Amino acid sequence: MRILGIDPGLRTTGFGVIEKEGNKLSYIASGTVKTQSETGLPERLKTIFEGVTEIIGTYKPDCAAIEKVFVNVNPQSTLMLGQARGAAICALVSSGLDVYEFTALQIKQAVVGHGKADKKQVQAMVQRLLTLPGIPGPDASDALGVAICHAHGTDTIQALEQAASLKSRSSFRIHRGRLLR
Amino acid sequence: MRILGIDPGLRTTGFGVIEKEGNKLSYIASGTVKTQSETGLPERLKTIFEGVTEIIGTYKPDCAAIEKVFVNVNPQSTLMLGQARGAAICALVSSGLDVYEFTALQIKQAVVGHGKADKKQVQAMVQRLLTLPGIPGPDASDALGVAICHAHGTDTIQALEQAASLKSRSSFRIHRGRLLR
Repeated sequence: MRILGIDPGLRTTGFGVIEKEGNKLSYIASGTVKTQSETGLPERLKTIFEGVTEIIGTYKPDCAAIEKVFVNVNPQSTLMLGQARGAAICALVSSGLDVYEFTALQIKQAVVGHGKADKKQVQAMVQRLLTLPGIPGPDASDALGVAICHAHGTDTIQALEQAASLKSRSSFRIHRGRLLR
Repeated sequence: MRILGIDPGLRTTGFGVIEKEGNKLSYIASGTVKTQSETGLPERLKTIFEGVTEIIGTYKPDCAAIEKVFVNVNPQSTLMLGQARGAAICALVSSGLDVYEFTALQIKQAVVGHGKADKKQVQAMVQRLLTLPGIPGPDASDALGVAICHAHGTDTIQALEQAASLKSRSSFRIHRGRLLR
């Protein structure tokens, strides 16, 4: 399964693509989509939309994960971040991808193991989990982090589904046993 | 020239299409794109994106106008509104439309003549300017209002361009006159 992680922002939208085979995670690509602050807002949103669409076309992920953003102290920044995130999500859903949202807390817990980890710890763990030759940049690291978080989440989902199917299978057996008796 | 006006919102995005021929404005269509609050955010943004894209396909506008939204008292609402607006703008720009942004003040000034007009005055003037048989609903009225604002704005732009071209023509004449002397 190939996962595209997105760290949305109006100036810089980070992306990271990882592949998951069984328990093994591997790094495919990462980078940023940048917009010019001198450009008008519609044009900047178009850049994000087209940039993310191009990334999807290039790396063909199976699903996407994006960080749930926090409201900023500055309401104008919150509005700008919201619009950038809306543009990125539009690119994902209009390419037919399922989009999974995670909070910063969930991402830190998935990557480092506890929710109070700082940026450097996240970067170091992203490097270790994906066996990268060096520390990834902050935008790429956050995008790879949310992709890793989703990869771990699917493990949990699969484990729960497996547990549920085992449970239902065993109850079916008991039921058949009863019927045979 | 056919103008699509958009009043963005996560729950309800209003749209209004008008046509401008010389000084005459005429009503083409209006309505809303609604999303279900029980649905996940990516799915809701997809509904807005696809809804606005469908409207563009149906009414084939030449350009689009959208209200500049205000930051809300509630930062979470600001974030939601921002994402909805981002999705609507993405639909407009990815269909190749130029997008013009206007503040509520500019819209009220263009439609009613002063910036302190209330909703009812805007609705009444939208009805009068487009010779509608009845008062339009609030979402449609706001969307038609921003389209009217752009239609008036293009008058102003044309007038300024005309003035500029007259000015440059007259300065050209003076220049030629000097050359001839």
